[in-house]
Amino acid sequence: MSETERDARHRARMQRKKAVMDEKIAQARDEYGLLLVHTGNGKGKSSSAFGMVARALGHGMKVGVVQFIKGAATTGEEAFFRRFPEEVSYHVMGEGFTWDTQDRQRDIAKAGEAWTVARGLLQRDDIGLVVLDELNIALKHGYLQLDEVLADLESRPLHQHVVVTGRGAPPGLIEAADTVTEMALVKHAFKAGVKAQKGIEF
Amino acid sequence: MSETERDARHRARMQRKKAVMDEKIAQARDEYGLLLVHTGNGKGKSSSAFGMVARALGHGMKVGVVQFIKGAATTGEEAFFRRFPEEVSYHVMGEGFTWDTQDRQRDIAKAGEAWTVARGLLQRDDIGLVVLDELNIALKHGYLQLDEVLADLESRPLHQHVVVTGRGAPPGLIEAADTVTEMALVKHAFKAGVKAQKGIEF
Repeated sequence: MSETERDARHRARMQRKKAVMDEKIAQARDEYGLLLVHTGNGKGKSSSAFGMVARALGHGMKVGVVQFIKGAATTGEEAFFRRFPEEVSYHVMGEGFTWDTQDRQRDIAKAGEAWTVARGLLQRDDIGLVVLDELNIALKHGYLQLDEVLADLESRPLHQHVVVTGRGAPPGLIEAADTVTEMALVKHAFKAGVKAQKGIEF
Repeated sequence: MSETERDARHRARMQRKKAVMDEKIAQARDEYGLLLVHTGNGKGKSSSAFGMVARALGHGMKVGVVQFIKGAATTGEEAFFRRFPEEVSYHVMGEGFTWDTQDRQRDIAKAGEAWTVARGLLQRDDIGLVVLDELNIALKHGYLQLDEVLADLESRPLHQHVVVTGRGAPPGLIEAADTVTEMALVKHAFKAGVKAQKGIEF
């Protein structure tokens, strides 16, 4: 096939693709706040949520963040987004990974406190995006009741987006979500013996 | 099982888990810049890369960003990260999705220009993280040569992290990567007839 033929074929294929995309966009009717869930064993669940924070800030929104489980260590995201206290309401509630604390009753109490903060953000009309980082872990361990969480999500302002992250999202949350992404691990340097890297892993 | 027994079992399980994690961390030997690839049909490939930008900035690193394909529209990330011109070198090289341009030779020329900018960032010792957003699309369409791209990635500064995003990462890039994450679509509001949302999709 000549270069000219290849170009022509490419043009035809892209024209068909554009028609399909335009049609899809025209069909999309509603505009309201979405509930997104990032789950799975791969990387990128939290960092994708923090990318959305940057995106939302770029659109002039205010953002709320609650970190449920990790957060004993100061992460790069936290250091960065705390630069904008007028725009980002940032709350680190967890006291480290659950295998560091080894105290279930304390984890339950801490998760309850974190949810109180989250509920406050979910009631604020001026906040366009709420990130509930590692909430899935708190749900999976039974530290929080799913029905209570879903009720508070349900009654949030109509325009407010919410992103929930963490492995093992419960089926009831997946059911309630508008968009669910499973981050699957294909290959991981950590397993191959490379240290967790500043700026990448934390 | 009583609440006390459940707590005790939880503690024992978490102790075992902590031992496993500590062992893994101790085994991790090397500290060098990673090559990460975010691919798959799900959401979060680019936003996860931009979350890492925030993370890196929080650690005081400088960051370079090249957007290869999309970017005719000003996205939220761009608006936000352009606030920090001293810390983020941000380059939007693409002219919209390939089905909008429908001109293969122009796409090839644009991709070549974008790679020249990327190569410049990959040679800078003061940059800790380089994001090559939608590079996989340019590779998949044959707009850039994989061996040339891999050679430039290979010769970057030892400490420099690179994140490559886009559907359809070529096998040679996956082979070269330290970490590969496949973002898989579980459920998508757009397909269900919801408009692309500002702050979420763009």
